[in-house]
Amino acid sequence: MKTMLDTIISRRSVRKWKPDPVSEEDIRDILEAAMNAPSAVNEQPWQFVVLTGPVLEEFTKINSNTPKGAPVGILVCGDKKADKLGGFYVHDCCAATQNILLAVHAKGLGGVWTAIFPNAIPELRRLLNLPDHVYPLAFVPFGHPVAKQGKPTSRYDETKVHRNSW
Amino acid sequence: MKTMLDTIISRRSVRKWKPDPVSEEDIRDILEAAMNAPSAVNEQPWQFVVLTGPVLEEFTKINSNTPKGAPVGILVCGDKKADKLGGFYVHDCCAATQNILLAVHAKGLGGVWTAIFPNAIPELRRLLNLPDHVYPLAFVPFGHPVAKQGKPTSRYDETKVHRNSW
Repeated sequence: MKTMLDTIISRRSVRKWKPDPVSEEDIRDILEAAMNAPSAVNEQPWQFVVLTGPVLEEFTKINSNTPKGAPVGILVCGDKKADKLGGFYVHDCCAATQNILLAVHAKGLGGVWTAIFPNAIPELRRLLNLPDHVYPLAFVPFGHPVAKQGKPTSRYDETKVHRNSW
Repeated sequence: MKTMLDTIISRRSVRKWKPDPVSEEDIRDILEAAMNAPSAVNEQPWQFVVLTGPVLEEFTKINSNTPKGAPVGILVCGDKKADKLGGFYVHDCCAATQNILLAVHAKGLGGVWTAIFPNAIPELRRLLNLPDHVYPLAFVPFGHPVAKQGKPTSRYDETKVHRNSW
């Protein structure tokens, strides 16, 4: 257990990367982690767009809260055609995104969960040719971190734990 | 890396448990994993209610899609007072929920992500005395699984991967 908990606790957002590319094998493993998230009634309502090079650069101009300079990133999209329970696809895709971050970190790479802001979506749809039923939810740029991470402090906070009642 | 990816891929929903309790140390570790999820602008907009005994039993009657019989469960709630970006607390809480599932699995326990259906919320609020700004989002009952899990097949699906464009 310690290894897993350590991996979860030592993961922190990384926003600066070396230009070195990420291997195709690593990208595949990270996507595999994403697709093994749980989902409501096992609907697996996700689609992934892997962005590199000029398209990634263009993406970070449109969704401007995404830091620039990563060699690669994964856009996690909800597939509304696969949504069976009226919106729980958002939960499922967030579970998949968290698996991406953990797999990235476990490989010694670094990444950050960036939100897709609604006002950026029409332009992103045009850039990536996304069909209407595919909704971009989160973007994780990742790569080899510039700085070696220190050991972060755990965010455990006892005041947020309630027992059988508020 | 293999260990982490294996943990992610071998995790599956567990819905039947032995009556044996889960140790307080395990519950704390699992809550620590939850609280080390990422969150938008590090807002950490989560609160957790640990349910056991008669309250847990009552909970599963109200939120009837939650399987009965777990010795313990964690209700993940969004704290709207901590939400700074207009609704991204849902994403943050889902990342925390996925960490709970992974930590449960890594400990050899088993759990399942169950949705909180909107029509159950008023009664759940009364049962748990939840304030208005606290929104119940997901519930994970967990414990010692009755059955030993086989090795599941990975859900990796190449058709869901797109490169730089749909």
